[in-house]
Amino acid sequence: MTTTISIKLETDVARREFIDKFDAFLLDCDGVIWEEEIVLPGVHETLKYLRSKGKQLLFVTNNSTRSRDAYLAKFQRLGIEAYVDEIFGSAYASAYYLKNVLDFPSDKKVYVIGESGITDELAAEGIQYIGSAADNESLKSMDFSKIVPDPEVGAVLCGFDLYVNYLKFAKAFTYLHSNPNCLFLLTNNDTTYPANGSIFPGTGSLAAPLVTALNRKPHCVIGKPNKPMLDCIVKKFHLDVKRTCMIGDRLDTDIQFGINGGISSLLVLTGVSQEKEILANDASIVPDYYIKSLGDFATIIE
Amino acid sequence: MTTTISIKLETDVARREFIDKFDAFLLDCDGVIWEEEIVLPGVHETLKYLRSKGKQLLFVTNNSTRSRDAYLAKFQRLGIEAYVDEIFGSAYASAYYLKNVLDFPSDKKVYVIGESGITDELAAEGIQYIGSAADNESLKSMDFSKIVPDPEVGAVLCGFDLYVNYLKFAKAFTYLHSNPNCLFLLTNNDTTYPANGSIFPGTGSLAAPLVTALNRKPHCVIGKPNKPMLDCIVKKFHLDVKRTCMIGDRLDTDIQFGINGGISSLLVLTGVSQEKEILANDASIVPDYYIKSLGDFATIIE
Repeated sequence: MTTTISIKLETDVARREFIDKFDAFLLDCDGVIWEEEIVLPGVHETLKYLRSKGKQLLFVTNNSTRSRDAYLAKFQRLGIEAYVDEIFGSAYASAYYLKNVLDFPSDKKVYVIGESGITDELAAEGIQYIGSAADNESLKSMDFSKIVPDPEVGAVLCGFDLYVNYLKFAKAFTYLHSNPNCLFLLTNNDTTYPANGSIFPGTGSLAAPLVTALNRKPHCVIGKPNKPMLDCIVKKFHLDVKRTCMIGDRLDTDIQFGINGGISSLLVLTGVSQEKEILANDASIVPDYYIKSLGDFATIIE
Repeated sequence: MTTTISIKLETDVARREFIDKFDAFLLDCDGVIWEEEIVLPGVHETLKYLRSKGKQLLFVTNNSTRSRDAYLAKFQRLGIEAYVDEIFGSAYASAYYLKNVLDFPSDKKVYVIGESGITDELAAEGIQYIGSAADNESLKSMDFSKIVPDPEVGAVLCGFDLYVNYLKFAKAFTYLHSNPNCLFLLTNNDTTYPANGSIFPGTGSLAAPLVTALNRKPHCVIGKPNKPMLDCIVKKFHLDVKRTCMIGDRLDTDIQFGINGGISSLLVLTGVSQEKEILANDASIVPDYYIKSLGDFATIIE
C-alpha cells in the first residue's frame, strides 16, 4: 500500500511543466520508443523536441545480447537520432560496473554465460574473459574431469545466452562453489523475455540453475530495477538525480528502477503496464507521472 | 527438534533382530552398496545373506540418466546379483507413475528434458514422448516462431540432461505456460550431482529455469525423498509398509524418504551423512536405526 498519487499529464500545460522540471531523461526502448521494428506514433517528433530543448537523452535497456554498437544500428535503421554514448544496455553497464565501480583486477578473468553483446563490451573495457561462445559446444559425456576450479576467475557474469548448456552451468558453478571470493553477477534478472507476441525464459531464469545449485543469490544484479545500472549512469554522466526522470512502460522494472535510484519516473501506457494498475487501491509501485504515450508530448511542439 | 532416538546396531543380537523385523529392504546404491566402481567391504556377503533369508531387495536411485537395463549392467559388472525388476530408478518410477498412478492418456505426449534413461522407460510403458535427444540441437537465432503451444503435450517431464539447452527450456516453458492442464513433473529434485569427488548442478537445478520463468513449483517430484516413488514401489510389489525398511546414506533424501513414506529407515555411515548429525540436539531428520556400514551385517552370517 502506498499513498503516492500519480500525476496524469493530460494537458499541454502539465506536459510543458513536466519537461521543464528535468535536464535528463532515461528512456526504456521497447514499448516506449518502438514496438519491435515500428516506431510508436509521435515519438520521432517528441525526441527531436527534447533534443531541441537541450535535454540529455539516455536509452536504458536490460537486453544484454547486443553491444551498444549493435543497438545503435537499430536506432539508425528506424531513423532515430542517437549516439553510442547515449545507449546504456545491461551488457555495457555490467562491463562499466566491473571496471569503474568494482575496480575488477586486470590479472583476473570473468567467466561469461552470455553472447557477444557482453564479451564485446568487456573487451572494450579491457577486462579479460573466458566462456561465452568458446563454450557453446557442450560436454558429450559424464566425464567432468576437465571442469576444475580456476583461481584466476574473479567473477561469473550471467546474461541472456541462446547457447546456454550444461558445460557453462557446470563451469560457472565450479568457479563460484570453489572460490568464495569469486563474484556472482547477473546483467539483469528478468525471468521472461518477450518475443513473437509471447514470452520465453529470460536471463533471470537462465541464471536459476546457478542460484539453485549454489543455494545463494547473486552478489549483484546490474540491470533495471536494480541500483547498479543507475549508479553507473549517474557516475558516467554526472547527472543531478533531482533533475533526472526515468520513462518506461513497466512498473516492476522501469518505474521501480526510478524509485530505487531516487529519481523521478514517468509511465507510458503503450507497453506492458496499464492505468488500472497504478490507480488500484493496493498499487505497490506508483510512478510520479504517467501519460498515454511518449508521442503525446508532440502536442506541445509549436 | 525431535525426540526420536536412533538405535545403533552395534551387536549381532541387535542386527539379527533388525533383519527379522522386515520382509523388504529398499536400498540406495551409491555410498551404500558401492562407491563409484568399487563395492564396499562386506556388501557382497550381506546382500547374499539377505537373499538367503528370503528378503525382498529393491534398489532405489534418483539417477534418471540410466534405464533399468543400463543400471543392471553396473550390478553385473560389479558381480552383484540383481534383477531388472528389483531396480527402481527415478526414470522408471516416473514412467510407472505416469502410466499406473496418473493414468496418462494414450493420445497425449510427454515433452522430455532428459536422456535415454527416461525415454527408454517411457517407451517401455507405451507412453508417447517428444523432445530429449531430438532437441539436442539448440536454436541458432532469436527466431522463436517455431516454438508454439501444442495441446497434445499433456506433461513436461524434467530429469538430468547433459544436453540441456535454450530450445528445451523454451519449448517446455511454452507447453506449460500456454496450457494449465499440462503437468509439470521432475524425476527428482537433487540440486547437485556428485561426480569426480566434487559436485555439479543436478536435476533440481536444471529444472530451475522452468520454475523461475513459470513462477510456480512442479506438480510432482517423483524421486526420493518424495512420496510418489514409494507409492509406485508399494503399489507394484504389494509391500507391507510395516515390514519395509529404507537403507541409505543421506538423511535429506534416503531417510526423509522413509519418513515421508511411513516405512522404517536405516542410515549407513559410508556415504554423505555422519553420526554426529543424528546425535545433535537439533537433529531434524533421524533414522529409526543406524549402522557403520551395510557390510557390518556380515558379522551375523553363520
